[in-house]
Amino acid sequence: MHTLIIGQSGGPTSVINASLFGSILEARKQKDIERIYGLKNGLDGLINEQFIDLTNLDLTSLATTPGAILGSVRFKIDAYPKDKDIYEKIKQVFLKYDIKYFIYIGGNDSMDTAKKINDYFKFIDFTAYVIGVPKTVDNDLQNTYFTPGYPSSCKFIATTISEIYLDTRVYIEGRVTIIELMGRDAGWLTAASKIPSLNEENVDLIYLPEIPFDMNQFLIDVKRIYAKQRKVLVCISEGIKDENGEYILKKRIFNTKDDFGHLQLGGTALILAEMVKNKLNLPVRAIELNLPQRCSGHLLAKVDVDYAIKCGKKAVQLLIKKQSGYMVCIEKQNDKLKLGKVKLEKVATFVKPFPKEWIINNNDISQEYLNYILPLIDKEVKVEYQNGIPKHFKI
Amino acid sequence: MHTLIIGQSGGPTSVINASLFGSILEARKQKDIERIYGLKNGLDGLINEQFIDLTNLDLTSLATTPGAILGSVRFKIDAYPKDKDIYEKIKQVFLKYDIKYFIYIGGNDSMDTAKKINDYFKFIDFTAYVIGVPKTVDNDLQNTYFTPGYPSSCKFIATTISEIYLDTRVYIEGRVTIIELMGRDAGWLTAASKIPSLNEENVDLIYLPEIPFDMNQFLIDVKRIYAKQRKVLVCISEGIKDENGEYILKKRIFNTKDDFGHLQLGGTALILAEMVKNKLNLPVRAIELNLPQRCSGHLLAKVDVDYAIKCGKKAVQLLIKKQSGYMVCIEKQNDKLKLGKVKLEKVATFVKPFPKEWIINNNDISQEYLNYILPLIDKEVKVEYQNGIPKHFKI
Repeated sequence: MHTLIIGQSGGPTSVINASLFGSILEARKQKDIERIYGLKNGLDGLINEQFIDLTNLDLTSLATTPGAILGSVRFKIDAYPKDKDIYEKIKQVFLKYDIKYFIYIGGNDSMDTAKKINDYFKFIDFTAYVIGVPKTVDNDLQNTYFTPGYPSSCKFIATTISEIYLDTRVYIEGRVTIIELMGRDAGWLTAASKIPSLNEENVDLIYLPEIPFDMNQFLIDVKRIYAKQRKVLVCISEGIKDENGEYILKKRIFNTKDDFGHLQLGGTALILAEMVKNKLNLPVRAIELNLPQRCSGHLLAKVDVDYAIKCGKKAVQLLIKKQSGYMVCIEKQNDKLKLGKVKLEKVATFVKPFPKEWIINNNDISQEYLNYILPLIDKEVKVEYQNGIPKHFKI
Repeated sequence: MHTLIIGQSGGPTSVINASLFGSILEARKQKDIERIYGLKNGLDGLINEQFIDLTNLDLTSLATTPGAILGSVRFKIDAYPKDKDIYEKIKQVFLKYDIKYFIYIGGNDSMDTAKKINDYFKFIDFTAYVIGVPKTVDNDLQNTYFTPGYPSSCKFIATTISEIYLDTRVYIEGRVTIIELMGRDAGWLTAASKIPSLNEENVDLIYLPEIPFDMNQFLIDVKRIYAKQRKVLVCISEGIKDENGEYILKKRIFNTKDDFGHLQLGGTALILAEMVKNKLNLPVRAIELNLPQRCSGHLLAKVDVDYAIKCGKKAVQLLIKKQSGYMVCIEKQNDKLKLGKVKLEKVATFVKPFPKEWIINNNDISQEYLNYILPLIDKEVKVEYQNGIPKHFKI
């Protein structure tokens, strides 16, 4: 009878708690697991022995609560023997609390952390098992068909863009509307702006970071479309870069000449909006979808929640079978999704870009992407409400 | 047997089409109404005889489709005899298409337009009836207990802020997050950021335009709260003003000294974020909830949709009783909502500010507001999905 610890790491998603829910449910069935501890703020809680006892906690609403309820962390460690003190502290904590099983839910940086801890345990011949559970709205993890968190973000993004589309169509003389999506250097989230086209709600121009962004061509295209329709809807990824690989975001002019030395904030969409305003003199609006993209728990994709839970359960099943050093992954075989496992080193620190062959004319997305995403966003999840808003799990 | 025309005007909402739906349903029951025409882009469609025949149209999904499906307009006319040509054109169109009934769905400017047309008809002794139906997310119409559109926007705003709250809590070292809400000069929408407190998800500071905004006190409060919690959540109205009545938005420094004469865009939240960054050097993020506040048809308040439909129906009932020059309104008597009517001149161009007595300490909202809003946002509306996103009505 041993202890299982579970940590959440990196940016939160709408379904990272669904994976936690799955792991707890499965762990409660296992005879070899006596206690289930959640790490407060991931690795930070492990090192500082900050635990939340999940063994008997009521889990109502946990699976549909966005954000990382254990708290998260962005903590990187070097490979052993560097950061030796940290590794030895981890071993001591494992011994002190009789921890034999460790689940880390996170993205590629977190999988790198899990891998290093697993490598250390193997190196010192310490008996403990480490399994990673994938999580990121960016969908940029290698060797998994999709990453839990991504489909729900797509469902929210596509829904919101379809609604903004309707809103921007009401006037005869409209605007250029530029919507900025997350995703760092991968265009997966921005590609979701193509989904409304299935319902004849079309975004006019879509720009992903996988293809260099040509500012002049952008202005030419906006001008042409505006002349025709009197309104233009543009979706861009926060991470678009010019042909020299420089982020468009860096083109913001810092107002160093004024008396205050003010630093100006704002995102990529705002920069493009200023270009449209200053170069084309067209009415323009910048919309950054911002945090709601990754935390809209009121609008979840059923497949996403189901697989987030399944991934959490699978992690426990692998641990009990004494498997270690793997991330749970999702595979597609004969049109069916199934769970598998992949060595952590095949995921850690790698990035899966959006396939370039699914990008058309530098500013549109192909049917292949729609074929990929549609089965993942179909069906909704019933969420419980309290005081008119979704009821969230509280520790 | 005559023609009913219906127009939509001003900024769209999530339920403006629900009112249209109600009017069409009720009109189809009336023997005196033979044809139902929608005005393309409001008054513009009336003058240019651009109609959409709604008499027998399939109305599936109309009541839950956001945006103004007839198209909207921001068209102001002067009182007759100014703009005489326009009034005479309107009369000709009424005669040509045998129009006896006119419903205009909109905010205070649109009620002003309806009033002027009604006054003109009375002045020339022309037999036609004009009724207004209230619509605005801003909730700033006088003489109605609430305005359809407002509760659904509140439900979306409160839900989104409760989710952002969870997202911003995950790290030990967090940020100052500043969320900007719509509402022009009225703080009604921003007040909705208090709703998550009912579920113990608290916004730290809330600023409405009804109280002068004190930048120094704001920075002092942010610094104090950050020192204590290592994260601060602030909600502000786009229309906040300083003690001289000047919009904070106007404080944006225009970069007139650079070689390009660039105009900088961005909202009030961005200005406050820049202040927090430059004066306090704290990590900060500005979030403008933007258009989704008024078009999130996937998350509607049931009372709002029900009353939007009822208002649309009531307008037809008043017309058939030869009532003219009124706006349908919602009254509260003995804890029950009921429909009434109010003279257009008692609504047109007036604004209903958020009650100052419901604002606490310049930066918080009282229980009285929560008592007012909670019954209006309770319960959800089932929305039909297609291709993973809400199915919208198409003409």
